[in-house]
Amino acid sequence: MAERHEALELDVADPLAGLRARFRVPDGLIYLDGNSLGALPVGVPAAVARTVEQEWGVDLIRSWNTNGWWEAPARLGDRIGALIGAAPGQVVVCDSTSVNLYKLLVAARARRPDRPAVLVDADDFPTDRYIVGAVAGASGTSVARELGPDVGVVVRSHVNYRTSRLHDMAAVTAEAHAAGAVVVWDLSHSVGVVPVQLDAAEVDFAVGCTYKYLNGGPGSPAFAYVARRHQDDLHQPVAGWLGHARPFAMAPEYEPAPGVLRLLTGTPPILSMAALEAALAAFDGVAMAAVRAKSVALTSYFVELVAARLGARFGLASPATAAERGGHVCLSHPDAYPIVQALIARDVIADFREPDVLRFGFAPLYLRFVDVWDAVDHLVAVMDGAEWDTPGFRQRAAVT
Amino acid sequence: MAERHEALELDVADPLAGLRARFRVPDGLIYLDGNSLGALPVGVPAAVARTVEQEWGVDLIRSWNTNGWWEAPARLGDRIGALIGAAPGQVVVCDSTSVNLYKLLVAARARRPDRPAVLVDADDFPTDRYIVGAVAGASGTSVARELGPDVGVVVRSHVNYRTSRLHDMAAVTAEAHAAGAVVVWDLSHSVGVVPVQLDAAEVDFAVGCTYKYLNGGPGSPAFAYVARRHQDDLHQPVAGWLGHARPFAMAPEYEPAPGVLRLLTGTPPILSMAALEAALAAFDGVAMAAVRAKSVALTSYFVELVAARLGARFGLASPATAAERGGHVCLSHPDAYPIVQALIARDVIADFREPDVLRFGFAPLYLRFVDVWDAVDHLVAVMDGAEWDTPGFRQRAAVT
Repeated sequence: MAERHEALELDVADPLAGLRARFRVPDGLIYLDGNSLGALPVGVPAAVARTVEQEWGVDLIRSWNTNGWWEAPARLGDRIGALIGAAPGQVVVCDSTSVNLYKLLVAARARRPDRPAVLVDADDFPTDRYIVGAVAGASGTSVARELGPDVGVVVRSHVNYRTSRLHDMAAVTAEAHAAGAVVVWDLSHSVGVVPVQLDAAEVDFAVGCTYKYLNGGPGSPAFAYVARRHQDDLHQPVAGWLGHARPFAMAPEYEPAPGVLRLLTGTPPILSMAALEAALAAFDGVAMAAVRAKSVALTSYFVELVAARLGARFGLASPATAAERGGHVCLSHPDAYPIVQALIARDVIADFREPDVLRFGFAPLYLRFVDVWDAVDHLVAVMDGAEWDTPGFRQRAAVT
Repeated sequence: MAERHEALELDVADPLAGLRARFRVPDGLIYLDGNSLGALPVGVPAAVARTVEQEWGVDLIRSWNTNGWWEAPARLGDRIGALIGAAPGQVVVCDSTSVNLYKLLVAARARRPDRPAVLVDADDFPTDRYIVGAVAGASGTSVARELGPDVGVVVRSHVNYRTSRLHDMAAVTAEAHAAGAVVVWDLSHSVGVVPVQLDAAEVDFAVGCTYKYLNGGPGSPAFAYVARRHQDDLHQPVAGWLGHARPFAMAPEYEPAPGVLRLLTGTPPILSMAALEAALAAFDGVAMAAVRAKSVALTSYFVELVAARLGARFGLASPATAAERGGHVCLSHPDAYPIVQALIARDVIADFREPDVLRFGFAPLYLRFVDVWDAVDHLVAVMDGAEWDTPGFRQRAAVT
């Protein structure tokens, strides 16, 4: 296992190896942060340039009709829907994950008026917890830590942003339904790397991020899913003109658009939407089961290499069993911060997360097994080598 | 007045004529819709390409620090602040105008808990009315049409999207304050064309759009202003991680960032932000008083030409006095829709607004007086000419 040629052989045998050509991955960079900002798909620069220079610059306001700008939120939504097991007409792309979570949480809350508590994991992503707290503070809702008879809404990340723990979507949803609650899933760390079957799991609502494994570009708009059965009487709080049934009627009263389109609020950021649309082409013809198989192989290889070469020097902060893990792996170490900085200095890009976590993301569409091998080799070098003995190495954490 | 050479002479004398070179305005197009989507500034394509190819494609996640992505909402905010009389630290760029209005309306509402009514004009832009209605419906607030002792918040567009009526910001604000209310101004149709002095007028809150006269590109992110005196205890409802005092602490409880940064919610759409930042360079060294002077001259010239050449065939749906008018002019006609379509077929881009309004926007940075002359000439030709006599011309309104 500890020989580099074995990694190269795994790459030769990788059925998805050819997908790397769909991305511009900088030479010499080992990019283990695609779970934070996905790499640039090759088709994006030309698509964005066309949107700027032709659609905006020449066609101007006419593009809303002639270049499909109006339909972009629903069109991109359906395209993402195909990756998460959602039949058409249930997903829109708009706003940020946080704003969409707010809208859906208020909407979900209104479906269980007699159950005032919202259940959210104490270690879930901060926005999820903050938005739950904000909605709770404004509406007399309470925040629960366990599923009980007072819980009307369960908010849950499919894959935890820090630990990478993967939740059983169908089981959690069924359990919530049996208890009388509806569920809002945050797919930010699973969409594009873990198979998701929203319709089959009878999920109620979901939100997700598009700039991680979907590679939509920095701050690309998020998506929101509303199961068809919840759409017709859904009431979302940020009722803007774009979610009106007839936006250009400029009618005196708000009348929500039919279906999931009522989640729209204001004008979408078309340049960022164009980048996302071009980026999604990287998934054309790719089965999510194959993506997951490679993802499991990559993370398992990393865990095995770390165990073999670094022994007990790091804690494993993610599930040891691949089936319980998403697309990233976290290690723990008291000097996590300077170690990550030393890796970055070696062009191995990983994340530090407070207080002691090193987070490594493995995007299956463009990462190779040899990248995993090289990353661990650099980690060994950092731990054994010159940086570690530099005076002040461990102290750098305190000053940044 | 009715001779084209007079328009050409006005262009020769125009001190801002040189600014047109800061834009790509398509040859042969008379673009009177810069109040809906501003033209493409020349620096934008290269700036966006650099952001996509270098910052995203090569620098990747490091760009949040090395390329100033984190600071973009505040940096662009201060740059817009300079155009609207706001000292630094009071404006951020984020989300859409509608989402920002929602945040500020809820925040403003909380400042006058004993005054449950929100005053909004019945003919204001739909999003303003819908958001007021949504907040009212959720919080027991009522919607008022007159300033009275129950009104805690006044929402007002500086320039009306349809009529172009320009409100006296200082007077309305002072009147509201005297009555015990705070004011949220919507600057969407005034920023970049009408001088705005938020600090001097002692405005409380403001929102605005960046893709109209600021030329930020389709759906570019909006801005929000919070006067410094309101910042420290401001409570905004969509409390996301980016508005946290320490976003990367991933702390269990939400603690708002100091100052106006607490308005931030989720990750900003960096590509759209990059376009906006490059677009704002079109205002470098330009005095808003000079922009307003040319704006008044353009709209007055249009009104005079229409009166002289089309007499009583159109109603003037905007104030006749330039001082009461923003940067666009609306005419009314029962056949407004087919007339606008006929103009568009002649490459004169104007807007139709329900039910009978033709809206013409005059962006002073790139429009010429000869464009105004030619536009009116086309309008005369439409009214006198072949299109008008085409069978079914007037009926087209019914089918689109």
